[in-house]
Amino acid sequence: METASNIPAIKFAKSNGSRFVEELKTFLRIPSISTSPEHAVDVRSAAEFVATELRRIGMQNVRLIETTTAAHPGGHPLVYADHLCAAPAAGGKSAPTVLLYGHYDVQPPDPLDEWKSPPFEPTERDGNLYARGAVDDKGQMWMHVKALESLLASNEGKLPVNVRVIIEGEEEVGGEGIAAFVRQHPDQLAADVALVSDTEMFAPDLPTLCVGLRGMIYTEIEARGARTDLHSGMYGGAAPNPFMALVEIIAKLKDDTGKILIPGFYEKVATPSAEELKAWKSLPFNEEEYREAEVGSTQLTGEPGFSVLERTWSRPTLEVHGMPGGFIGAGAKTVIPARAIAKISMRLVPDQTPAETFALYKSFVESICPAGITLEVRLIHAGDPIVVSTDNPYVHAATSAMHDVFGKDTVYVRGGGSIPIVGDFIRELKIPTLLMGFGLPDDNLHAPNEKFHLANFHRGIESIIRFLSNITAS
Amino acid sequence: METASNIPAIKFAKSNGSRFVEELKTFLRIPSISTSPEHAVDVRSAAEFVATELRRIGMQNVRLIETTTAAHPGGHPLVYADHLCAAPAAGGKSAPTVLLYGHYDVQPPDPLDEWKSPPFEPTERDGNLYARGAVDDKGQMWMHVKALESLLASNEGKLPVNVRVIIEGEEEVGGEGIAAFVRQHPDQLAADVALVSDTEMFAPDLPTLCVGLRGMIYTEIEARGARTDLHSGMYGGAAPNPFMALVEIIAKLKDDTGKILIPGFYEKVATPSAEELKAWKSLPFNEEEYREAEVGSTQLTGEPGFSVLERTWSRPTLEVHGMPGGFIGAGAKTVIPARAIAKISMRLVPDQTPAETFALYKSFVESICPAGITLEVRLIHAGDPIVVSTDNPYVHAATSAMHDVFGKDTVYVRGGGSIPIVGDFIRELKIPTLLMGFGLPDDNLHAPNEKFHLANFHRGIESIIRFLSNITAS
Repeated sequence: METASNIPAIKFAKSNGSRFVEELKTFLRIPSISTSPEHAVDVRSAAEFVATELRRIGMQNVRLIETTTAAHPGGHPLVYADHLCAAPAAGGKSAPTVLLYGHYDVQPPDPLDEWKSPPFEPTERDGNLYARGAVDDKGQMWMHVKALESLLASNEGKLPVNVRVIIEGEEEVGGEGIAAFVRQHPDQLAADVALVSDTEMFAPDLPTLCVGLRGMIYTEIEARGARTDLHSGMYGGAAPNPFMALVEIIAKLKDDTGKILIPGFYEKVATPSAEELKAWKSLPFNEEEYREAEVGSTQLTGEPGFSVLERTWSRPTLEVHGMPGGFIGAGAKTVIPARAIAKISMRLVPDQTPAETFALYKSFVESICPAGITLEVRLIHAGDPIVVSTDNPYVHAATSAMHDVFGKDTVYVRGGGSIPIVGDFIRELKIPTLLMGFGLPDDNLHAPNEKFHLANFHRGIESIIRFLSNITAS
Repeated sequence: METASNIPAIKFAKSNGSRFVEELKTFLRIPSISTSPEHAVDVRSAAEFVATELRRIGMQNVRLIETTTAAHPGGHPLVYADHLCAAPAAGGKSAPTVLLYGHYDVQPPDPLDEWKSPPFEPTERDGNLYARGAVDDKGQMWMHVKALESLLASNEGKLPVNVRVIIEGEEEVGGEGIAAFVRQHPDQLAADVALVSDTEMFAPDLPTLCVGLRGMIYTEIEARGARTDLHSGMYGGAAPNPFMALVEIIAKLKDDTGKILIPGFYEKVATPSAEELKAWKSLPFNEEEYREAEVGSTQLTGEPGFSVLERTWSRPTLEVHGMPGGFIGAGAKTVIPARAIAKISMRLVPDQTPAETFALYKSFVESICPAGITLEVRLIHAGDPIVVSTDNPYVHAATSAMHDVFGKDTVYVRGGGSIPIVGDFIRELKIPTLLMGFGLPDDNLHAPNEKFHLANFHRGIESIIRFLSNITAS
């Protein structure tokens, strides 16, 4: 709805929209790839870029919080800011506090040769901004910063609610640093609700709140056979081959219908409510269109008897991401490698837990270790699956804000990905989290040619301005 | 035996032995990795190094023969030389012609971090010379050149037999260039016998002739699923995963006992003669020692019911060498890659043929292609399996030469690896090939820390001097 405070802010956002995009481009040029040690300096420079901007727009107590500890070497800093002097709400109650979360780190850009424009040279084409991190999550996080700027600049440095901002640099690598901070200093993030914009809209123009996320465990299986690499001519037929061992193991983890074969794996899997399943069926979704436009494979795969939305939202999966080792260059090298690794992750759903699932997986993998091979099964990172309630005033403030911007009712969906911090907010801060994202299904997250539809960038800023204003008004 | 002509040559080789090693080191410093396009210049420079030396020692008609054609782009040159003016043999018969074969290209050195000294900085330790190519095949080929030099230098530029030298630069990538040359110009390589030193001795101090070699087909299976890399959170459960597809396929190619499951694969496999099998049993071979000292795995693997020598000499195998694609860096990237490749080779034995075996393999792989995946099955290179006769005067000249050097009778073995050119010599030149090699089982061919035992380098030169002299004397 229109209020005295949001109209000037929306005007400010509209008249400064081009500048916001140019600033975002500068931010996107920083290759803040959190998984690559060689980019540690870039990751820090992205953190400093955000902190500098938060200071400039008038946020308070802006600081970097270091996350490196003995148990977590090479941690990337958190960026913190707040603004806690909002006028009391109607009735004299102190104003509510909103915790804004985002992340400034990005996924690696490989395979580089599939990008139409370089991943760290943001390029506009057809109303979209192409760059690694454009939508995940630099662009969406920038919406938060620009919504705050618009409100502060148009109302004498005041915000309609109290705001805390926490932005991490390890979301793409498991978020260990922020998880520890939330556990150890929940008071410093005390709030009534968290707002996260790191998800997507179900369809263009369809305002969406995400109310469930899959969890995950990301693992490595390292198989070792011979002491050193061997020539397959001389030793083939006698020496164990770690790749063959990994193949045998992985083939026993999942059958060809997509069913995971780890004993006990499905025991804790909860079925969504009949109401939720019914709502999913009414969403504008066409499997054939999705196959053709988004996936582009000859067929979709996955567990029979479940819809695509169920398979990607409420069913667990297991995927192989890469198998480093041996010879991967062009041409031929006839090596039996001494070791090989499989990078394997599982997406988890309520009520699976990462710890229990990893234990089941590790013990099964070890039980099927082929002859002559020694294995190491490692957990790289983990995140809880979550479902969040739709029954609170913040959800109403958000759906009302998006209705004003898009002119449509909000749909409730789940996400197949993981945002581990949402579980931490629920567990440690005891607050609901709104997952109000403005990405699109074809934004190529984690893939070449990641983009952000610029119209959604601007609508996101306006939605957040309205949301923050609505909370007080409600 | 001692003859008038070989004693001075042996003396020459002994007094020039250190220089021979230093020259070899210079040769080994050239990273002539034939499979890597970025090393094409080095490969050529290795060819020129050999040609220059052949000219210097007094060989004639030395030249590089280009192998690049439209069908074979980027071919590496052959080095040719001859010396065809040997005095007639006893009885006025013209002197026999020996064709000396070797290769100047080497395998890639990766994984680099497992080398104790850099692969292209030859280093002596404990009587061994460590470098990529030390024994396979630069060092052994250099024995041929140095045997010729010793004979020429100590006998007024004369050789006891006619000699042709042909040295290729594509042995490690399938030898397509030399195969075409042999097919098209058999007259230019006309000879009575070929000598190849690219194999190993069965045990230290045990002179060995190799009378059989496995063939091979080196293949790639490329699996494609989605149009572009996808995020495993959003698409896991619906999008096909090319790695999972390759795993399913490979798991169906070979069972966990090592038996290959491709229909018809074993149909043409010949069993060695009872006599040959009996001779193999009497060789000094201890499976437990081999496992511990050479392989270093907790167990050996392979088809039950066959000895290690049978499994590596007379049984076919299938190995995975690498699986490029997806994310192979440190840390986590949750990608479902659009494509992945498996590099798979099969070792073949008589009477399997590469063409028939590839056809069986390709058709089986395509028949088990998982849903949603498209496959391309490619043959990278191939070589025939061979067995050679032991019943000819050249074998006697060789065993007599080695007896004089080592003081022991020669054992006849097979090799598990492939030297495709041997099949071409048999088929196109109609001549027997002697596989008289001086490597050792622990020389780390194709692996980090490849070495050549320097005592064998010198004994090899002497054996070749004696062999060339024996042929005329016989």
